[in-house]
Amino acid sequence: MDFYSRQITTLIEQLSKLPGIGAKSAGRLAFHIIGMPENDVSALADAIKDAKANIHYCKECFTFTDAELCPICADDARDHSTIMVVENVRDLAAYEKTGKYNGVYHVLHGVISPMAGTGPSDIRLKELMTRLSKEDVKEVIIATGSSLEGETTAMYISKLIKPTGIKVSRIASGVPVGGDLENIDEVTLVRALSGRTEL
Amino acid sequence: MDFYSRQITTLIEQLSKLPGIGAKSAGRLAFHIIGMPENDVSALADAIKDAKANIHYCKECFTFTDAELCPICADDARDHSTIMVVENVRDLAAYEKTGKYNGVYHVLHGVISPMAGTGPSDIRLKELMTRLSKEDVKEVIIATGSSLEGETTAMYISKLIKPTGIKVSRIASGVPVGGDLENIDEVTLVRALSGRTEL
Repeated sequence: MDFYSRQITTLIEQLSKLPGIGAKSAGRLAFHIIGMPENDVSALADAIKDAKANIHYCKECFTFTDAELCPICADDARDHSTIMVVENVRDLAAYEKTGKYNGVYHVLHGVISPMAGTGPSDIRLKELMTRLSKEDVKEVIIATGSSLEGETTAMYISKLIKPTGIKVSRIASGVPVGGDLENIDEVTLVRALSGRTEL
Repeated sequence: MDFYSRQITTLIEQLSKLPGIGAKSAGRLAFHIIGMPENDVSALADAIKDAKANIHYCKECFTFTDAELCPICADDARDHSTIMVVENVRDLAAYEKTGKYNGVYHVLHGVISPMAGTGPSDIRLKELMTRLSKEDVKEVIIATGSSLEGETTAMYISKLIKPTGIKVSRIASGVPVGGDLENIDEVTLVRALSGRTEL
């Protein structure tokens, strides 16, 4: 692509390293950025550097934060004896948005996936066990996704925790609220059936 | 989203201003960036600032370049009497990749689109007419897209140039090479029929 100036080629290369951004999108983004007002470009570049420089893991739950403890772990009003285990920070955010969960979290930063070469030691599982051994935890709610990897990870964690005597639960999986049954896949329908509750 | 630290919220906001990046993608990108090695993050932020600081329009054809004239306009081996008019720099790049065009370009940076509120004065049309009046141009090839806006723009430019006596042509539109007819939309099939050439 030597018909582009070096700075453009470099920018396209850098952008296409980001997840979900292919060569075409990277080109579109690069030209958009070049066409943006100078102030907006600075704001974007500074936001990138600023986040990287100031954000790190919460030493307790491993979510991203700019303090030693994240606002959730630092909040005495939350129930620190209930830990919800999530795959990533976006899943934590999804549950926080509901406003219906008052416990704390543990972010694994991944799932066990033999296909992707991710084993138990590649996610923040050791750190979870350390927490359980040091804190007075009554329940661990496993909220990994309902994908094969999410289920495998949930099973693995539950087997690991069971011997400690701490209660382990799994979020329900079934038909999403408001969904027409005809649009739901068979696996979910079977899961909803076997997980039925008495009324 | 006050469960994210300020730096994360700012980064997500900045990223979601980019075209084609919604709130969800912005979140995913932000967390990916925070997890990237420090050097890679600097390289990305610097590439953004560097491109913005050093890239501007070629004073002749309005493509992006870091010099006064882009490499194509500065190349005496190219045919400066043939100008291909394109919507944007990506379209210029697409034709350059073919290696089969030896003329020069003119980048409009947009198309005439009444729906989007873009008129003839919002694209680099005046600059094209100035070029035609100053240089010795023999042919203008209009290579805007075959969308409604692209066709409208092509018609508008052709009417503008006709009185000058300069030859105006339009790239052919029809069935893409290697495409099965059954997968091609009807409008394209009709266009290919009416644009048929004798063998």
